[in-house]
Amino acid sequence: MKFDKDGNVTTFEKKKMELYHELSLQARDLRFQHLTSITARNNNIIIRMEALKAVVTPNSLLVLDFRGLGLERWLVLELAPQLNGDHGALATHSLPFEFRALEAILQHRVNTLQARLNEVHPVILDILESLVDPKLLSADRSKLHILLQNSKNLSELETDIKVFKDSLLKILDEEEMIEELCVTKWTDPRVFEESSLGIDHAEEMELLLENYFMQAEELGNTTRELKGLIDDSESVIFINLDSHRNVMMRLNLQLTMGTFSLSLFGLMGVAFGMNLESTFEEDPKVFWLVTGFMFLGSGLIWRRLLSFLGRHLEPTIPPQIPTVWKRNQINSKGGEVKSGLR
Amino acid sequence: MKFDKDGNVTTFEKKKMELYHELSLQARDLRFQHLTSITARNNNIIIRMEALKAVVTPNSLLVLDFRGLGLERWLVLELAPQLNGDHGALATHSLPFEFRALEAILQHRVNTLQARLNEVHPVILDILESLVDPKLLSADRSKLHILLQNSKNLSELETDIKVFKDSLLKILDEEEMIEELCVTKWTDPRVFEESSLGIDHAEEMELLLENYFMQAEELGNTTRELKGLIDDSESVIFINLDSHRNVMMRLNLQLTMGTFSLSLFGLMGVAFGMNLESTFEEDPKVFWLVTGFMFLGSGLIWRRLLSFLGRHLEPTIPPQIPTVWKRNQINSKGGEVKSGLR
Amino acid sequence: MKFDKDGNVTTFEKKKMELYHELSLQARDLRFQHLTSITARNNNIIIRMEALKAVVTPNSLLVLDFRGLGLERWLVLELAPQLNGDHGALATHSLPFEFRALEAILQHRVNTLQARLNEVHPVILDILESLVDPKLLSADRSKLHILLQNSKNLSELETDIKVFKDSLLKILDEEEMIEELCVTKWTDPRVFEESSLGIDHAEEMELLLENYFMQAEELGNTTRELKGLIDDSESVIFINLDSHRNVMMRLNLQLTMGTFSLSLFGLMGVAFGMNLESTFEEDPKVFWLVTGFMFLGSGLIWRRLLSFLGRHLEPTIPPQIPTVWKRNQINSKGGEVKSGLR
Amino acid sequence: MKFDKDGNVTTFEKKKMELYHELSLQARDLRFQHLTSITARNNNIIIRMEALKAVVTPNSLLVLDFRGLGLERWLVLELAPQLNGDHGALATHSLPFEFRALEAILQHRVNTLQARLNEVHPVILDILESLVDPKLLSADRSKLHILLQNSKNLSELETDIKVFKDSLLKILDEEEMIEELCVTKWTDPRVFEESSLGIDHAEEMELLLENYFMQAEELGNTTRELKGLIDDSESVIFINLDSHRNVMMRLNLQLTMGTFSLSLFGLMGVAFGMNLESTFEEDPKVFWLVTGFMFLGSGLIWRRLLSFLGRHLEPTIPPQIPTVWKRNQINSKGGEVKSGLR
Amino acid sequence: MKFDKDGNVTTFEKKKMELYHELSLQARDLRFQHLTSITARNNNIIIRMEALKAVVTPNSLLVLDFRGLGLERWLVLELAPQLNGDHGALATHSLPFEFRALEAILQHRVNTLQARLNEVHPVILDILESLVDPKLLSADRSKLHILLQNSKNLSELETDIKVFKDSLLKILDEEEMIEELCVTKWTDPRVFEESSLGIDHAEEMELLLENYFMQAEELGNTTRELKGLIDDSESVIFINLDSHRNVMMRLNLQLTMGTFSLSLFGLMGVAFGMNLESTFEEDPKVFWLVTGFMFLGSGLIWRRLLSFLGRHLEPTIPPQIPTVWKRNQINSKGGEVKSGLR
Repeated sequence: MKFDKDGNVTTFEKKKMELYHELSLQARDLRFQHLTSITARNNNIIIRMEALKAVVTPNSLLVLDFRGLGLERWLVLELAPQLNGDHGALATHSLPFEFRALEAILQHRVNTLQARLNEVHPVILDILESLVDPKLLSADRSKLHILLQNSKNLSELETDIKVFKDSLLKILDEEEMIEELCVTKWTDPRVFEESSLGIDHAEEMELLLENYFMQAEELGNTTRELKGLIDDSESVIFINLDSHRNVMMRLNLQLTMGTFSLSLFGLMGVAFGMNLESTFEEDPKVFWLVTGFMFLGSGLIWRRLLSFLGRHLEPTIPPQIPTVWKRNQINSKGGEVKSGLR
Repeated sequence: MKFDKDGNVTTFEKKKMELYHELSLQARDLRFQHLTSITARNNNIIIRMEALKAVVTPNSLLVLDFRGLGLERWLVLELAPQLNGDHGALATHSLPFEFRALEAILQHRVNTLQARLNEVHPVILDILESLVDPKLLSADRSKLHILLQNSKNLSELETDIKVFKDSLLKILDEEEMIEELCVTKWTDPRVFEESSLGIDHAEEMELLLENYFMQAEELGNTTRELKGLIDDSESVIFINLDSHRNVMMRLNLQLTMGTFSLSLFGLMGVAFGMNLESTFEEDPKVFWLVTGFMFLGSGLIWRRLLSFLGRHLEPTIPPQIPTVWKRNQINSKGGEVKSGLR
Repeated sequence: MKFDKDGNVTTFEKKKMELYHELSLQARDLRFQHLTSITARNNNIIIRMEALKAVVTPNSLLVLDFRGLGLERWLVLELAPQLNGDHGALATHSLPFEFRALEAILQHRVNTLQARLNEVHPVILDILESLVDPKLLSADRSKLHILLQNSKNLSELETDIKVFKDSLLKILDEEEMIEELCVTKWTDPRVFEESSLGIDHAEEMELLLENYFMQAEELGNTTRELKGLIDDSESVIFINLDSHRNVMMRLNLQLTMGTFSLSLFGLMGVAFGMNLESTFEEDPKVFWLVTGFMFLGSGLIWRRLLSFLGRHLEPTIPPQIPTVWKRNQINSKGGEVKSGLR
Repeated sequence: MKFDKDGNVTTFEKKKMELYHELSLQARDLRFQHLTSITARNNNIIIRMEALKAVVTPNSLLVLDFRGLGLERWLVLELAPQLNGDHGALATHSLPFEFRALEAILQHRVNTLQARLNEVHPVILDILESLVDPKLLSADRSKLHILLQNSKNLSELETDIKVFKDSLLKILDEEEMIEELCVTKWTDPRVFEESSLGIDHAEEMELLLENYFMQAEELGNTTRELKGLIDDSESVIFINLDSHRNVMMRLNLQLTMGTFSLSLFGLMGVAFGMNLESTFEEDPKVFWLVTGFMFLGSGLIWRRLLSFLGRHLEPTIPPQIPTVWKRNQINSKGGEVKSGLR
Repeated sequence: MKFDKDGNVTTFEKKKMELYHELSLQARDLRFQHLTSITARNNNIIIRMEALKAVVTPNSLLVLDFRGLGLERWLVLELAPQLNGDHGALATHSLPFEFRALEAILQHRVNTLQARLNEVHPVILDILESLVDPKLLSADRSKLHILLQNSKNLSELETDIKVFKDSLLKILDEEEMIEELCVTKWTDPRVFEESSLGIDHAEEMELLLENYFMQAEELGNTTRELKGLIDDSESVIFINLDSHRNVMMRLNLQLTMGTFSLSLFGLMGVAFGMNLESTFEEDPKVFWLVTGFMFLGSGLIWRRLLSFLGRHLEPTIPPQIPTVWKRNQINSKGGEVKSGLR
């Protein structure tokens, strides 16, 4: 366990019981049953933010069980100066110690959430950008896997932001709880007197909490937008894939029509290829006649089928839509091989 | 930095510290941590609306850091006359200065949001209109890309409207905050007396804020409707694409049936084409017999398959639906080539 | 402008300024910035319901700018008798004039909303009924277009109902505003005295507003149900189209299997059709042997493929589902041409 | 009209006006404008639950317009004993008459809602069970039709439950309205005195209403779960149909590959079948060579295409997924006809 | 029935009436109409948590109808020590008996819910993991069935958690109800005095209930995340299946193009195979010429079709997207058989 006083940092280990006694808390108060909670008990503020467990007394901040959580660096390098009041960026340096401590911890929490969002956000945008690319015939399935993973992380982040917001909101909704958080007010008689002269700690505390509530709200808005973007992109991916499929299907159908025509007139060739007597065997013109008929017939039937397809894909009530006529013309010309495939 | 007094416009630069001192504010009050916020502090109203940062004092409006934001034109051309009270369109010209200033800023914000909506709205409607066109076999993928981009902008706009509404609602929900916003009331003793005679500034302020809240609400309703329209259109696009596909698939199936029939009876021709003795070689009638059988057989089998397909696509319990009989007849006639393909 | 008094109808034109003066209102009060609003100002009720703008004074109703809105018929034929109290269907004829006026206007608004719903409702039901028809292979795309149009109208109607409900709710939530709406109470001293004797106008007003709020709520419920029905129907349409496609695909696959079999054994025929010496040329039995082998082999391979397909479409873990055995039998018989296609 | 007193049942017809007079109500109070409402007026409780219209006075229950609604059986057989207090199952028999009447009517309403849910619930579960069956290639479209019908009924039921809950909640939210419902308390001076001694009718009334509110809540939860189940099942149906389609498509592709191979090498046979001089005509080995080459070449090309297909359907970045190797082996063996189709 | 006093466990059977008398409750109070409810009546707390029905008196806990519910083990092994206060893990051992009893029951309920979640959670994750696998061509339908079953269980669990939370929230929202739950306070005059000295039972009770409310909230968050994950995974499965289909479709189309080319030029061979005089019969070069033309022509046409397909699948407005050029090159090379299929 570690001990942080107005500026100095001390690390020591203590038994739980001694700690309870020293802070006049009960065992239950330090059980930290919820992942995120801020409670005031006997002029101490007990905070848990996921891994970080802390107790704020009027003139010190105790961080419990801080080892092995990757928090050491933050504790040593950033927390101490902030509490010391040296760190100019914090607005509360003229306020009592518990304000500085609370602000440092809430700021750390918001930073952590922001960092997680910053990690997920560009990855998702990148993947969506590449998946939505209209040139792609099929979605890259390994990217989908990564997208799913990130979207799961996003959901978890959303829940954590919601839990953080709820725990702040619970305090903001009850005037009494805000009062209780201003621990210096109750312990320092001098401050208590001042507060009756208009310097109100509770109001400052409310502003501080509200500030972090709104920061969390902004994070929440960003995650919600990101989720909406994923949904929209998925729809676009589906329409993309469906469109590609329809285009390919039409090509396939046009070729099937060609194959059908060739089979139909090829049957004629097969008939004349049979070792059966047809009386035409000796007539030299018949070969060219039949061959010409086969190719021409195939071509004509195919052309007919293609123009039929063109008409078939038109809407049933064309008069309503003025551009139909133009399209009809294009399709009726579609019988020629090349334009039919375009 | 710039300085706007009752009508005159002055631009000057000041150090932050001097400004704090002059307005008797603390450094923290002018930090503008949130993108959208309205706060009252020591008879000053501190406003931030995205890029615009302003401080309203009882008889002047200070706009901070206004350079490079594209706001200059609005500041010079529109804001000054509005504050001056010359601009007849504003209803608050008989009210204290802070009303005029607040109204000008809120109106500017609502106008900005409205302008963003006006930009996105027709583009989305146009794209949807062209995507939903029932004649299209496939969705234009570059349009989908633009749609996605606009739908993302719409989400961001929705969030901004929500944040603007929330910041107004927060004030409207607390009577005290509305009172604080009426800064003239607290600084001008004459006005303070009046207010006890029934001329209530707070009520006017509530009406003013409510007015802009409702304007934002209307914007929010429009964006929500637009989002719903995008969703509905996407469903219709999907059904369109699926329908096209089914129609093409049926055509494909009908042609596959034809090809199958031709192959089946073509096999016969191939058989007779083998250089093997079949004893029929010399009989002249056999040629016509087999050829006729091949073509006729193909036709009959195809007809049979088509009528089978017609029956197959019927629902399993036809008695419930009275129109089935009529359709059955159509389908049984479908064996002929042309009507079968129609 | 028009003027409606206790029963008589007068039409006249007035300048705005005179009107303000006469009603002791400010210019701002008659600006009608929101599409739907009910406000009380200096013993006048100012109402806007989309196109209809009206001012209710204790003993008259002024309808402003009524020309060219299609409201004339309603104003002349229905509004006058209702205000007169002759129209027996209105329950408030024993109550002061402002009740009659307010009821007439709210009733008109609810009727308008109801009429719009009545217009959209049967069209949507009809289209859905015809689109959901399980016999259809493809959705009629012109109907989809109409559906989309109506679904857009429905969204707009939903928003209007919501706005109407919200503006009523805002009044119902504040006791004071209801009191202000009872303008007769404040102008007529006789009524004021009565009200202290238990005849409470405010309560009557609350009942009246609540009544229309609940009517709007019922309209809102109907639109929500309709939207849900559209969503459900779309799912059913998709499943329908998908089912059709799967059935056609299986048929297609079965025919492709047939064509493959025929090609495979047709290759044999082609081989013997080559102008190459195979030593079998003179043997008369070989023709029948090979021909028979070709047709029989095709049939057998096809049968094998079909039964393979039957097995392939079974679930991977059949023991869990007791009906599998029955189906397996059907499928193994599927090798015969006819039953395989059924 | 009918008249139910403490135990006796009387049926009589009365004019509306007489009724109003007798109950000292106004015409408007008995208009029953909303489908579901509970109101207290002059020591009478006016209830409407869809078809059932009733007035509860301190010592009688009047059911209005009860004919032709299918309510007769319930009125005669069940309502009378319940009101009489004989029906042991009701908990309120020691309480004033209006409690018994209200409880009987609310119980009837909840029973009706429950009955409607019981009707829809098993049908939907059955249909979903059969539609979700993984063995099915296509969804039974007549079942979809029934599902849609039931899902529409479910939506209507959900709305009715919501309306019922809302009308109860409106009363529960206002202490005053609960007081008003205890009509005996206000008419019977003896009871009024008692109530000041701690026997509180209002509290009992709150418990009674809360009880039915929670029963309605449970019904609402069940309908919501059912709706969620329908949605989930639809997704599963879609995945099922898509999976079937993909499996069929792969088979189709494998066969198309086969047909392509046969066509390619069949072309060789056709070439030799031409009546053109190829100089090989007399060589007996060439027949077997070419025939063998045709069949073998087809087989080899097909095998190659199949293994190519196997590789093609693999994910693009196989190293990430350890099971790829195993699958690759299976697919490379897929060149042989049988295993390729498995 | 069973009887648990401060530490001793007694089992006995009693008639309902005796029980009512003993606890001075009414029959109605022990009807347990709702699945989950906590009520205070005459200094007894009546609790129902699904199967578990219990009455907490100031110094004993009665569990009713406990047989055949699988609760015996928990009752005997865990409940007794907890109530006894021996079980060190419970924080309330210094508090009155009803706290211990309530905590034990609520803990049991939360544990049950947690256990159900723990059962469903890994199964769903496993199935999703295997379904989302990008290598799969088709979804395993028996896994879908299990997923659907689990997703249904999850919905039911979600409802149960919601009901549990609501019943706690109902108490937490009303200060009075919390007071009533502190039954010892009202029965033991000594405790009552203490409470006026600052030892507040109600506050402890609120903390206890809030604790379990937050535990339920965490469970609720997890179920919601899980539901979101199922939805996201389903989208990914759909995109996966669609992608596979598109890839297969392109392959199919490429092969159909090949077959078409072969048919087209095969027709030439068939023509020369006819037993008709073409005057080329004797020219030995013609055989090689025609054969070469057939194969080469097929190849060229196919190549042309493939490059046409490549261009066709490009977006319509390529200049916007810079990577198009690169892709175009790849596709134009796609005419060669191998690279075209890659």
